[in-house]
Amino acid sequence: DFMSALDEVHPAFGVSEEELLQVIQNGIIHHDPVVDKILQAGKLLVEQVRTSTRTPLVSVLLYGPPGSGKTAMGASIAQASEFPFIKLISPDTMVGFSETQKVAAITRVFTDSYKSPLSVVVVDNIERLIDWTPMGARFSNGVLQTLLVLFSRRPPKGRRLLVIATSSLRSILTDLGFAENFDSELRIPPISSLRSLDLVLQEVGLFQSDQQRKQALSMLAQAGFGDTDEMNPTFQIGIKKLLSTIEMARQEPESVAERLTNSLLDLRGT
Amino acid sequence: DFMSALDEVHPAFGVSEEELLQVIQNGIIHHDPVVDKILQAGKLLVEQVRTSTRTPLVSVLLYGPPGSGKTAMGASIAQASEFPFIKLISPDTMVGFSETQKVAAITRVFTDSYKSPLSVVVVDNIERLIDWTPMGARFSNGVLQTLLVLFSRRPPKGRRLLVIATSSLRSILTDLGFAENFDSELRIPPISSLRSLDLVLQEVGLFQSDQQRKQALSMLAQAGFGDTDEMNPTFQIGIKKLLSTIEMARQEPESVAERLTNSLLDLRGT
Amino acid sequence: DFMSALDEVHPAFGVSEEELLQVIQNGIIHHDPVVDKILQAGKLLVEQVRTSTRTPLVSVLLYGPPGSGKTAMGASIAQASEFPFIKLISPDTMVGFSETQKVAAITRVFTDSYKSPLSVVVVDNIERLIDWTPMGARFSNGVLQTLLVLFSRRPPKGRRLLVIATSSLRSILTDLGFAENFDSELRIPPISSLRSLDLVLQEVGLFQSDQQRKQALSMLAQAGFGDTDEMNPTFQIGIKKLLSTIEMARQEPESVAERLTNSLLDLRGT
Amino acid sequence: DFMSALDEVHPAFGVSEEELLQVIQNGIIHHDPVVDKILQAGKLLVEQVRTSTRTPLVSVLLYGPPGSGKTAMGASIAQASEFPFIKLISPDTMVGFSETQKVAAITRVFTDSYKSPLSVVVVDNIERLIDWTPMGARFSNGVLQTLLVLFSRRPPKGRRLLVIATSSLRSILTDLGFAENFDSELRIPPISSLRSLDLVLQEVGLFQSDQQRKQALSMLAQAGFGDTDEMNPTFQIGIKKLLSTIEMARQEPESVAERLTNSLLDLRGT
Amino acid sequence: DFMSALDEVHPAFGVSEEELLQVIQNGIIHHDPVVDKILQAGKLLVEQVRTSTRTPLVSVLLYGPPGSGKTAMGASIAQASEFPFIKLISPDTMVGFSETQKVAAITRVFTDSYKSPLSVVVVDNIERLIDWTPMGARFSNGVLQTLLVLFSRRPPKGRRLLVIATSSLRSILTDLGFAENFDSELRIPPISSLRSLDLVLQEVGLFQSDQQRKQALSMLAQAGFGDTDEMNPTFQIGIKKLLSTIEMARQEPESVAERLTNSLLDLRGT
Amino acid sequence: DFMSALDEVHPAFGVSEEELLQVIQNGIIHHDPVVDKILQAGKLLVEQVRTSTRTPLVSVLLYGPPGSGKTAMGASIAQASEFPFIKLISPDTMVGFSETQKVAAITRVFTDSYKSPLSVVVVDNIERLIDWTPMGARFSNGVLQTLLVLFSRRPPKGRRLLVIATSSLRSILTDLGFAENFDSELRIPPISSLRSLDLVLQEVGLFQSDQQRKQALSMLAQAGFGDTDEMNPTFQIGIKKLLSTIEMARQEPESVAERLTNSLLDLRGT
Ligand SMILES: Nc1ncnc2c1ncn2[C@@H]1O[C@H](COP(=O)(O)OP(=O)(O)OP(=O)(O)O)[C@@H](O)[C@H]1O
Ligand SMILES: Nc1ncnc2c1ncn2[C@@H]1O[C@H](COP(=O)(O)OP(=O)(O)OP(=O)(O)O)[C@@H](O)[C@H]1O
Ligand SMILES: Nc1ncnc2c1ncn2[C@@H]1O[C@H](COP(=O)(O)OP(=O)(O)OP(=O)(O)O)[C@@H](O)[C@H]1O
Ligand SMILES: Nc1ncnc2c1ncn2[C@@H]1O[C@H](COP(=O)(O)OP(=O)(O)OP(=O)(O)O)[C@@H](O)[C@H]1O
Ligand SMILES: Nc1ncnc2c1ncn2[C@@H]1O[C@H](COP(=O)(O)OP(=O)(O)OP(=O)(O)O)[C@@H](O)[C@H]1O
Ligand SMILES: Nc1ncnc2c1ncn2[C@@H]1O[C@H](COP(=O)(O)OP(=O)(O)OP(=O)(O)O)[C@@H](O)[C@H]1O
Ligand SMILES: [Mg+2]
Ligand SMILES: [Mg+2]
Ligand SMILES: [Mg+2]
Ligand SMILES: [Mg+2]
Ligand SMILES: [Mg+2]
Ligand SMILES: [Mg+2]
Repeated sequence: DFMSALDEVHPAFGVSEEELLQVIQNGIIHHDPVVDKILQAGKLLVEQVRTSTRTPLVSVLLYGPPGSGKTAMGASIAQASEFPFIKLISPDTMVGFSETQKVAAITRVFTDSYKSPLSVVVVDNIERLIDWTPMGARFSNGVLQTLLVLFSRRPPKGRRLLVIATSSLRSILTDLGFAENFDSELRIPPISSLRSLDLVLQEVGLFQSDQQRKQALSMLAQAGFGDTDEMNPTFQIGIKKLLSTIEMARQEPESVAERLTNSLLDLRGT
Repeated sequence: DFMSALDEVHPAFGVSEEELLQVIQNGIIHHDPVVDKILQAGKLLVEQVRTSTRTPLVSVLLYGPPGSGKTAMGASIAQASEFPFIKLISPDTMVGFSETQKVAAITRVFTDSYKSPLSVVVVDNIERLIDWTPMGARFSNGVLQTLLVLFSRRPPKGRRLLVIATSSLRSILTDLGFAENFDSELRIPPISSLRSLDLVLQEVGLFQSDQQRKQALSMLAQAGFGDTDEMNPTFQIGIKKLLSTIEMARQEPESVAERLTNSLLDLRGT
Repeated sequence: DFMSALDEVHPAFGVSEEELLQVIQNGIIHHDPVVDKILQAGKLLVEQVRTSTRTPLVSVLLYGPPGSGKTAMGASIAQASEFPFIKLISPDTMVGFSETQKVAAITRVFTDSYKSPLSVVVVDNIERLIDWTPMGARFSNGVLQTLLVLFSRRPPKGRRLLVIATSSLRSILTDLGFAENFDSELRIPPISSLRSLDLVLQEVGLFQSDQQRKQALSMLAQAGFGDTDEMNPTFQIGIKKLLSTIEMARQEPESVAERLTNSLLDLRGT
Repeated sequence: DFMSALDEVHPAFGVSEEELLQVIQNGIIHHDPVVDKILQAGKLLVEQVRTSTRTPLVSVLLYGPPGSGKTAMGASIAQASEFPFIKLISPDTMVGFSETQKVAAITRVFTDSYKSPLSVVVVDNIERLIDWTPMGARFSNGVLQTLLVLFSRRPPKGRRLLVIATSSLRSILTDLGFAENFDSELRIPPISSLRSLDLVLQEVGLFQSDQQRKQALSMLAQAGFGDTDEMNPTFQIGIKKLLSTIEMARQEPESVAERLTNSLLDLRGT
Repeated sequence: DFMSALDEVHPAFGVSEEELLQVIQNGIIHHDPVVDKILQAGKLLVEQVRTSTRTPLVSVLLYGPPGSGKTAMGASIAQASEFPFIKLISPDTMVGFSETQKVAAITRVFTDSYKSPLSVVVVDNIERLIDWTPMGARFSNGVLQTLLVLFSRRPPKGRRLLVIATSSLRSILTDLGFAENFDSELRIPPISSLRSLDLVLQEVGLFQSDQQRKQALSMLAQAGFGDTDEMNPTFQIGIKKLLSTIEMARQEPESVAERLTNSLLDLRGT
Repeated sequence: DFMSALDEVHPAFGVSEEELLQVIQNGIIHHDPVVDKILQAGKLLVEQVRTSTRTPLVSVLLYGPPGSGKTAMGASIAQASEFPFIKLISPDTMVGFSETQKVAAITRVFTDSYKSPLSVVVVDNIERLIDWTPMGARFSNGVLQTLLVLFSRRPPKGRRLLVIATSSLRSILTDLGFAENFDSELRIPPISSLRSLDLVLQEVGLFQSDQQRKQALSMLAQAGFGDTDEMNPTFQIGIKKLLSTIEMARQEPESVAERLTNSLLDLRGT
């Protein structure tokens, strides 16, 4: 039965712990309440898969601007499930694959997942998996069709699967035919408030003193960072780019605040 | 003669019972009179194939929005025929197939069907079978042409065949050249009335008490769900998505009604 | 000489009787004077090939809306010729063929025909042979070019050939380069008069009594069927679809007239 | 030297007499002074190749509407040259060839021609050789580029070559890049005068008596055939189609004039 | 060192004298001062390659209308260099090559050139090398990219290379990405003055007497040939076509002047 | 640990010194303060990679007009890093490679780099690596996708990598999907001031005397060169083309100033 099947999962298809940790190398900084809300929503979906018999397949899309933390969040939700089968499908491991090889590799992970009573598959960066480029709207239709089918194909009897997909190009997914393909969609927002910025800066310890940090923040506030016009935020930056910008600023110890604020202000013009 | 031929059908090409049951895993809920009308229309077509000598080939298209229940209805009609040969052609079993392999697999099922005096072939999800994507209107012309011919090719003398095709994209089928290809077309509508919703909720037992269910329904009624402007219904949802939405709501026992209504109200904005 | 050559035709390349009969399974119903006119025009072309030395190659296009009876008429004309070589080139026998295989199969029939002093080749359903789809105007240029050459290539000295082609898409043939390719073109019209309809209904014996049939016809007349505005006929239906519609109506003996008229009236809206 | 080289031409690459005769099976009817003018212009080009050392390569395009007699005229000019190497490159002999095979076959003829001191190559029906179709402007660029180079490539020292190309689509040749590719261009016009028509009718002896013929001609004259508005001629018909139309009319001896005039008048509407 | 390296050039990769002479078979007629200016500019570039150490690679584009003499001029400049390695890359020797074969052949010549201390490579007729056709703007991107890289790739240390490219389609080269690819560009103009025409006619001795020639010229002058409106010259003709036109006129000795002037006047309308 | 790993780098994958020197054959002329600013910015990025543990991957784009010195600057920054692994990925070494071969070669360099604790990879001339042509916006999507992944793929634990990419077509990179792909972007400007020009001329010693040089500069100043309208500079020229123009002028010792100024003034019209 279901419970005994849980024990029989072949370890070869077990959790790829290392891969998951690699993509959350810099941890999850709880810079905003939305971070916890997303993790909680993920947990509910995990529970639905674990308990519901009517929906053996549940799929969720994590979307948001580049570098907003989609991959790290997806990996975190997957890891927290503690399901016996957790796998990450990532373009990073498919460089130079032919279309046929990609389709085979992707399909393989899903087929393997069917051997475990409970599985999570993270399908990271759909646009890259399908070789998407805006120029001429080119992409691999072979990989796209494979994903379209796999995201909707019910696992065999007695098996349950959570699919977590990530993408920066939600509107294009619709044009590609992904409409109504996901049971649920969660938005990973960029950082756009002074409060979030402050929390990140504290966490990474860029400044020697609180005073220095506050000075930098007040400079940014004056330049309009964090203004409350939420519809059209003056600044916004993905957590990934923010962390990189911080490290760059760190290289010039004597002018950290200046470099940081300049870099952030530059984003306005983009 | 015809009757003795009926007995000789080789079991290898018999009914694929399991596959059919898999796609109607959640049963058929009779939430609306149209459900029975469609099943009845299917039955008449089955009879026409069984009895008429002038039309050894009859084809019908089941169309309707995503998740409206096309596959489950097609499988139900096929199964009810009790013909000696019933097969489901589904994209689920063709992931990673090359165009040539798909064409061969599809053709094979039709060729096999000609060995039985009476056959039903369900061709599920035409758009996925032809690798359709709206982006750039790409598709496999090889599979398309194969379907166009097979849907019109008369079985050999003494053989009779019912073809049941399903699709969410009827208007695109016309653009692809499917005009006048089907003897009959049946629409599978989404759920858009409070009455239907109520029947489904009863069937799946989401609420502990009738009162709770009625409260939820009256909340939805107030929000406009089920308004009688039939041309432009405020809400509509496929049975498949409705069942998934219900299971998600079930995860939070203390706020079931709230989550369900929120999810349904969200659909308005889409 | 010519006459003795006639006797030497190798039977292997003889008439494919069965194939021809298969496509006129429901016979030719003489529902309108135009049916005989077309058959007569075909006979004259057959005679021209048999007797004229200046035109060893004659080609004719049978065109008309889907299901108007093109294939059945083409096969009838071919069969009536009683030429020693008669072959049907049909998409039905080429499902899953690669472009190269199609070209080879088509070319083969023409090459074989050159071995007989007198031949008819029916090239059925050009649009399907060239894998035509309106979406993106896709087609097999390889097959198209093969047809363009074969339709104009003179048979070797002492051989004579009649080519009968059929198509529902005459205007597209022009766009594809078929202009001036045929010596003659004949239109196969759909049924659009009450008189024709009456003749077909009599022939297939749908109604138990003459009275019932006349009642149904007068219902249709009232709805405008057969109105004499020839340019823009209110109703028109191919003989093939009409026969299928009749068989469907036959399934409900107690409401035959109602179902038939409803089905026909439905066509108006299309 | 040149004269002795002339004797050494290997017969294997000699004149393909039969092929040439096949395409002028119905002879050349001198229905208009332009016919002789074209033949004379061809003769001058032949002489230029035979005598001039500065232009070892001369190319000419014969163009005109479908069926105007381009192939027959090209073959006639080639045959009249009496050069030791005369070859016809025709799409008729390349049905089912791949692009590579076509390129090889065409190149081969030119390479062979370089072995003879004096050669004529007739490149018939360029549009068909390049697999041209107006739909989507598709064609074989491989064959096109081969022709573009071969039409301009000088034969090796001491060899001289006349290239005669034919096409119905002169304006498209320009779009394809054939501008300035030919040393000379000659137009083969369709028949558009009563006088020409009369001469053809006499030649083929369609009518039993002169009176019958003149009656038919006066019927056509009344209908406007041959009107002198040269810019926009009411009727015009290629000699090839005219001959075919005549043979068709011949099938109904009792109404020859009627059928002929009807067929010709029908062309007006096209 | 450099000077001793000069002696070691392997003869297998030496000058292809014959090929060069073949393309200037009719010599260079000095019909206009611009002819010498171009040859002089070429000489300077040759000297730059021979002497400058800072620019081991120099490239020049010879462009001008079809038949203006680009190939002959390029070959003349190359030959005059007397460099130990001179090669002509021409579409004439690549008929029927696949893209891969073309790329290999072209690359080979450049690689070979690197073995000589001083080399000239003439890349003739870029548009034909890349299989360019205006219809649909089709071309071989593989060959194009090869040329783009090779035209800019510095030869290895101690080797120097002059690249001479020719093209009739300079504006299209820009669209293809050749902007800024050449160190220098030289225009080869067509003939458009009476003076140039006169010089050519004298050189080729078309007329028996000076008087005849002058008469012909005055006829052309009257028709507007050579009018000084330089921006929009009434007549212009490439030297190549002019020489061909002259040879054609020579075929009719009794009406040379008439044919020549007619042919030239015909060009006006084009 | 990190420091001992530094010593173990396999020499086979060491620095390709020669390749780097080849592309800065003419040295770096410090004609403008921006030159040093760019080199300094490069140095900071090198330090970030060397010291920061949070950003094991740093990428920078050097962009600017053709010939502005991108490749030479990229190579200089790389060489100055003195990292144990420095490699140049250049289209020059991939002529004639198939897409698959290119992808393999590029991927190989990145994979090799992961074996060194500290690496720099210079990806030179992105547009050429992806076979970009503006005509029809054609490019190799395979190579593009490979770059998109490799530029973002984190090296394995304990390895750090600096990616320096160069391109003349920054705006097209965005259209191709490179937005947000680089941690940093640096512009390499062309020469547009008299002061820079003067410094280059001094460095390369084109003129015999200072006076001659100044005379030439004043001629250029009069013609508007170096005018301070920075938004729309009258003249601008890449250092690469400037050096080539100088060498050309050097060929005519008696008119150096004239040729140089003419060449530079010609650029205005482009
Ligand atoms: N709250 C957070 N959410 C997500 N990532 C976080 C958070 N806090 C810190 N991080 C770190 O930020 C980085 C986010 O990068 P990640 O690759 O997940 O972004 P992404 O949106 O997937 O980027 P891309 O659009 O390039 O795919 C990771 O290194 C992660 O450890
Ligand atoms: N009346 C009904 N009609 C159809 N399906 C029903 C009905 N009642 C319950 N169901 C259940 O609803 C689900 C319908 O899903 P199904 O896959 O058939 O929809 P679909 O329209 O084919 O979806 P898709 O557009 O994704 O192909 C099935 O699980 C089926 O058991
Ligand atoms: N007068 C008639 N002309 C043609 N077919 C007739 C006629 N009377 C009866 N029939 C029957 O009608 C059917 C016509 O079908 P047929 O396949 O020839 O039509 P079609 O125009 O070729 O269809 P499609 O457009 O699908 O190719 C045949 O079964 C034939 O036996
Ligand atoms: N004056 C004529 N010129 C050319 N052909 C003639 C003439 N008189 C009679 N004919 C006959 O007319 C026919 C012309 O056909 P031909 O194939 O040469 O035309 P075409 O223009 O090449 O046709 P297409 O456009 O189909 O290639 C030949 O059978 C030829 O014998
Ligand atoms: N001054 C001249 N310049 C160039 N060619 C000349 C000149 N005088 C005579 N010729 C002759 O004119 C011909 C020029 O032909 P060439 O093939 O070089 O022209 P082209 O511009 O390359 O033609 P295309 O555009 O077809 O490639 C050669 O035969 C050459 O010998
Ligand atoms: N300040 C400088 N910056 C860059 N290059 C310089 C500088 N001074 C001199 N040079 C020389 O100028 C040349 C610049 O050429 P380089 O190939 O780097 O330009 P590029 O911008 O990469 O050109 P392309 O757009 O063709 O790729 C090199 O030979 C280099 O030695
Ligand atoms: Mg990601
Ligand atoms: Mg379905
Ligand atoms: Mg048909
Ligand atoms: Mg012809
Ligand atoms: Mg040339
Ligand atoms: Mg560069």
